[in-house]
Amino acid sequence: MGRVYNFSAGPAQLPVSVLERAQEELLSYQEKGMSVMEMSHRSSDFKKIIERTEELIRELMEIPETYRVLFIQGGASLQFSMVPLNLLKDGGHAYYVNTGSWSKKALSEAKKIGEAKILASSDDQNFTYIPELDLQQINEQTDYVHITTNNTIEGTRFTKFPNTGHVPLVADASSNILSEQWDVSKFGLIYAGAQKNLGISGLTIVIIREDLIGHVKADIPTMLNYETYTKNNSLYNTPPTFAIYITMLLMEWLKEQGGVAAIEERNKEKANLLYKAIEDSKLFYSNVKREDRSLMNIPFMTDSDELNKLFVKEAEQEGLHQLKGHRSVGGMRASIYNAMPIEGVKALVDFMNEFERKHI
Amino acid sequence: MGRVYNFSAGPAQLPVSVLERAQEELLSYQEKGMSVMEMSHRSSDFKKIIERTEELIRELMEIPETYRVLFIQGGASLQFSMVPLNLLKDGGHAYYVNTGSWSKKALSEAKKIGEAKILASSDDQNFTYIPELDLQQINEQTDYVHITTNNTIEGTRFTKFPNTGHVPLVADASSNILSEQWDVSKFGLIYAGAQKNLGISGLTIVIIREDLIGHVKADIPTMLNYETYTKNNSLYNTPPTFAIYITMLLMEWLKEQGGVAAIEERNKEKANLLYKAIEDSKLFYSNVKREDRSLMNIPFMTDSDELNKLFVKEAEQEGLHQLKGHRSVGGMRASIYNAMPIEGVKALVDFMNEFERKHI
Ligand SMILES: Cc1ncc(COP(=O)(O)O)c(C=O)c1O
Ligand SMILES: Cc1ncc(COP(=O)(O)O)c(C=O)c1O
Ligand SMILES: [Mg+2]
Ligand SMILES: [Mg+2]
Ligand SMILES: [Mg+2]
Ligand SMILES: [Mg+2]
Repeated sequence: MGRVYNFSAGPAQLPVSVLERAQEELLSYQEKGMSVMEMSHRSSDFKKIIERTEELIRELMEIPETYRVLFIQGGASLQFSMVPLNLLKDGGHAYYVNTGSWSKKALSEAKKIGEAKILASSDDQNFTYIPELDLQQINEQTDYVHITTNNTIEGTRFTKFPNTGHVPLVADASSNILSEQWDVSKFGLIYAGAQKNLGISGLTIVIIREDLIGHVKADIPTMLNYETYTKNNSLYNTPPTFAIYITMLLMEWLKEQGGVAAIEERNKEKANLLYKAIEDSKLFYSNVKREDRSLMNIPFMTDSDELNKLFVKEAEQEGLHQLKGHRSVGGMRASIYNAMPIEGVKALVDFMNEFERKHI
Repeated sequence: MGRVYNFSAGPAQLPVSVLERAQEELLSYQEKGMSVMEMSHRSSDFKKIIERTEELIRELMEIPETYRVLFIQGGASLQFSMVPLNLLKDGGHAYYVNTGSWSKKALSEAKKIGEAKILASSDDQNFTYIPELDLQQINEQTDYVHITTNNTIEGTRFTKFPNTGHVPLVADASSNILSEQWDVSKFGLIYAGAQKNLGISGLTIVIIREDLIGHVKADIPTMLNYETYTKNNSLYNTPPTFAIYITMLLMEWLKEQGGVAAIEERNKEKANLLYKAIEDSKLFYSNVKREDRSLMNIPFMTDSDELNKLFVKEAEQEGLHQLKGHRSVGGMRASIYNAMPIEGVKALVDFMNEFERKHI
């Protein structure tokens, strides 16, 4: 069974050992005679799975006791609405940092619910950098400040997080959660779709400071209220059980890798390898500001649309898949999440060098 | 690998052949070198999966061209809010038929959004029957009538559907979709969590008549608007890709079984076997009105709490799992969805007979 290197921005490549373990116990989890897919979410076996998953996330991210970890459906896109529904107050407002396509969507959903304003933006240069924030603009009426920690499409990331004082910092961390060590206590709320560094699509993880829960108006739909999840340990209704199980396996894998500190080292090594190849190249280039470069999503391109297309096509023939760039940026994009082995990046760099020799 | 019979109300037992197929291609779908879990939802391979899934559901349920099939996250519980958010109009109201715990939850979510009233209820007799509906109450201001086609907890089902004329009939069909042949054209909207007859948890299927889409107020969250799903073929954001794939496999299995007509026959045979055992028994009984009995969820009990407990415990030792009744009803409950083979029901009946001999 030949496996390829999959540079998809998400859903994304998983470690082979995780897939093998899922495969092994697909018809019978731990000799129980049933698949995790078939387990009642109220069974003691599933409760152990969801509890273990939470425990591993807490341990890996060193999440303080005062935070809750929630398992929600709907993707990060539903969080774009749940965040303001739960955190915006009458007469208050939220500040959004506009660093790309996903930030813009988060902002436009918030505007439907209440007052949401732009604190800073990098749209003047096609989102190729992370803007400075003027924190003086934050005031008593600011309910939260929203950032996108990593811009999946544009290939930038926050390398340090703003100190918003008593105002909660809310982060869409969909595309780089668990890729670097963070101090969770700097955030009020972190959310992430699971389909990159946390597992598979259909599950969203929300990490929320306890004091932010329970202040919504009475008429919010039950499923959109964070308190529903905290009061019922994410078992108010049927959660995406199999997706949670895959997250458990992936977190166990990450722990075996040495945890977030170790994976951060490897992520930097992988990204540096690819950035160096782009810099050294006379054919390929990147438009992203050096200091703000993503470790996870690396857009690069040549000046020729034809060559870009040919690159993507020939790469696929070499077992390097999903390298097409997002239509809004063009060119190529290599997404190299935690589960992408360095061998995959080396294979890509080798192919880039070969391609350059042929086409320059 | 010993497999058990799993009588869970959901997530529930799947056909072994479906699990085996998923297992076989877990590391490499159709020799593509990647798992379905790792596939970009924008890839042509995944598009084929979601299109094939829709096609199979359409074919099996004979869904008219004028209906759309949507793949949504959040469970049936999120539909409790999406239905009124999308269908309730200013000055209008909805009528709910209150036939059990799930109907009550649907109603209470609707009340948060607009005017929702009870058309008929069976709460006077602990929801052990399906009430007659006085359709004269429906008027020009009625935006829809909501029923729960099968009451998972109480063990009743609608054996015929009310003719609501020009007012859309909305159905929570979570626990008996695809178990019997239905005329979809009688409904305006059918929704169902996938974790019973459609696949695994984390996916909800909505079948909606086209003319009901697109009449919401502008400020509804994008993810709660059915139009978002129809306009983007359920790919506005990342859908629960693996859950959709399992639905595809399950629908292929159902087709191989002869489709809904054939499974209906088998479901009736299975249910009759169990109901006959309960009726013939001097120990076990059921409180559900004969004409309204569910084919999918069959509650039964003895007069002794101790015996009920012992039954559940000893049954599990015989490989008959998850037979504990819901706490609101007590006793036992056997959920026998499409994927439960008749052998499972026979094993249960044999065990009931043996238990009765010992304890009467
Ligand atoms: C940073 C970021 N936010 C939000 C999303 C949307 O996530 P979902 O598809 O889970 O709604 C994505 C998806 O790639 C993303 O990368
Ligand atoms: C009839 C019915 N409606 C709604 C639900 C809730 O579904 P979910 O857990 O997917 O939100 C269930 C769950 O068992 C059900 O049986
Ligand atoms: Mg982005
Ligand atoms: Mg260069
Ligand atoms: Mg019920
Ligand atoms: Mg009897």
